[in-house]
Amino acid sequence: MEIEIRRTETPRTPPAPGELGFGRVFSDHMFVADWTDGRGWHDARVVPYAPFELDPAAAVFHYGQAMFEGLKAFRGQDGQVRLFRVDRHARRMHDGASRLCMPPMEAEDLVAAIRAVVKADAAWVPGAPGTALYIRPTLIATEPFLGVRPSRRYALFVILSPVGAYYPEGINPVKIWVEQRYVRAARGGLGAVKAGANYASSLRAALDAQKLGYAQVLWLDASEHRWCEEMGVMNLFVRIGDRVITPPLEGTILDGVTRASVLDLLAEWGVPHSERRLSIDEVVDAHRDGSLAEVWGCGTAAVISPVGELCWQGEKLKIADGAMGPLARRLYDTITGVQYGGADTRGWMTAV
Amino acid sequence: MEIEIRRTETPRTPPAPGELGFGRVFSDHMFVADWTDGRGWHDARVVPYAPFELDPAAAVFHYGQAMFEGLKAFRGQDGQVRLFRVDRHARRMHDGASRLCMPPMEAEDLVAAIRAVVKADAAWVPGAPGTALYIRPTLIATEPFLGVRPSRRYALFVILSPVGAYYPEGINPVKIWVEQRYVRAARGGLGAVKAGANYASSLRAALDAQKLGYAQVLWLDASEHRWCEEMGVMNLFVRIGDRVITPPLEGTILDGVTRASVLDLLAEWGVPHSERRLSIDEVVDAHRDGSLAEVWGCGTAAVISPVGELCWQGEKLKIADGAMGPLARRLYDTITGVQYGGADTRGWMTAV
Repeated sequence: MEIEIRRTETPRTPPAPGELGFGRVFSDHMFVADWTDGRGWHDARVVPYAPFELDPAAAVFHYGQAMFEGLKAFRGQDGQVRLFRVDRHARRMHDGASRLCMPPMEAEDLVAAIRAVVKADAAWVPGAPGTALYIRPTLIATEPFLGVRPSRRYALFVILSPVGAYYPEGINPVKIWVEQRYVRAARGGLGAVKAGANYASSLRAALDAQKLGYAQVLWLDASEHRWCEEMGVMNLFVRIGDRVITPPLEGTILDGVTRASVLDLLAEWGVPHSERRLSIDEVVDAHRDGSLAEVWGCGTAAVISPVGELCWQGEKLKIADGAMGPLARRLYDTITGVQYGGADTRGWMTAV
Repeated sequence: MEIEIRRTETPRTPPAPGELGFGRVFSDHMFVADWTDGRGWHDARVVPYAPFELDPAAAVFHYGQAMFEGLKAFRGQDGQVRLFRVDRHARRMHDGASRLCMPPMEAEDLVAAIRAVVKADAAWVPGAPGTALYIRPTLIATEPFLGVRPSRRYALFVILSPVGAYYPEGINPVKIWVEQRYVRAARGGLGAVKAGANYASSLRAALDAQKLGYAQVLWLDASEHRWCEEMGVMNLFVRIGDRVITPPLEGTILDGVTRASVLDLLAEWGVPHSERRLSIDEVVDAHRDGSLAEVWGCGTAAVISPVGELCWQGEKLKIADGAMGPLARRLYDTITGVQYGGADTRGWMTAV
């Protein structure tokens, strides 16, 4: 894939480290490519960040054909900019597209696209501890047609947002509401795809939980409302005694890149762990008999988000005395260590 | 709500009756209003149809906050333009918004918006038999922010597309694939809302069915894959013997306006009918004992779409000898009769 580079004539100054938030400020450039039926991907380009012109009948506004990825570039202590597991993110986006009847972009082309735009805006990768350049590849349907069928035109774009530390004041375990009413995804649905549709469905539950003082919800399965699935927009891990459990990839949860990294590390460290179904009853029973040692979510934004309390049917289960557990801490330190330029023995980092 | 009218300076000529398709050509004007947190709906306006400028970070591209309505304006034999059950469509859009954490527009304001834009483009309402002006109100999230939470800015727009007859060559019953793998919506999900997300999830199954020679799928429930829910993007009716059955409104199917109209007519005509769960086994058993008399889908686009064959687990169930049944025919004739200016004893039509 050839990528045309058209640089802005009015570069802006990236925000100062203290001014960084999340996903609000965008860099000078973006990557865009178009897909047309019969022609495939074309006009791959890095261009100045600018609004899109889209017909009001564009399919993305009507039939939800939209999916995305989220990954990060880090500035190491050596000043070098590196991407975290970009291959895996690109492959996931490639593999998910067909569920939404959207055209996949070859993973290697998407990696090239990400590298090209991050390179163009390398000055936007912040250097302060905990900061990063958040990268958002997005695939949307653009054909202006209201018939219910897959669009015949698409755009894939990649935008970049310098983001502040997720835990500027240190890691505080969160309180999580176990959701019984709303459902994120069902088997045979879109749960394994990073589709906008899943997020649309989940906003309501998160908002309701927040009104009750909870940071997020723990999702149960759609059929039996019994099996743990995800935690907000993160994958879920539970340590019972010395064994770590995470829900299996059966089509309803996302194949998280941080999840995979956690599993890699647990294997490397010889920590007993399984990918298997985990019922909320098992979690509650473990809390009762004192063996519920740690619960955490993991994802690109937070890396590791320890849970200090679960609320299930009105009962509040305190976990690890509301503190961050030792395994969650070790995982967080190890993954962020690699991200910020520590020894990369696993081939996770790609220099830009 | 005050609506500013800004007419185009370059009006186009509506397509000739023979050139009408569906959802491809749009009229001269559109209605647009903006919603901003703290300010509510503002800047309601009828303006020339034109592309939107949207930031690549706009929430609709990322988190699926998008929903729509679909209704029609008809030119009666008396030349008068009328909307079919516009109040009910507007109320459904109002009621569905909160599930997606989107701001509702008051139903009476939406009706006023629809009337204003249809009035501006009254010349675009075709007059040939079977044709109509398709009206697409759409609500999208526009805030440029990547944090996962409801957007704080929205746009509601209404676009108009003159459409040809759904059955230009007479009504041909369709073949329907009973879907066992994919799921449209689960309880606790978005099934009752006209959300883009539901369509995103359903495209794959429809495409696979079409490759096998079927027009659409019949959706089963997400938990047991047993209960009939919808037929493609339509509501489902089954006549077994003299009794008509349609799945109940339990949160997984759409509260269809044509569905409601069919139920009104069945009640009026004294046809025994129930809104209750209907298993695919019951349908198959009825076919075996010869009592499966008629199956049809209903919706705004087709009004009534009779089913000539169901394919269930490889078995092909022929229905009504593959012809349109008498009750489906009577419903179609009655509803379209009212739409095209027949006696409106039920208050379904609103003159523009």
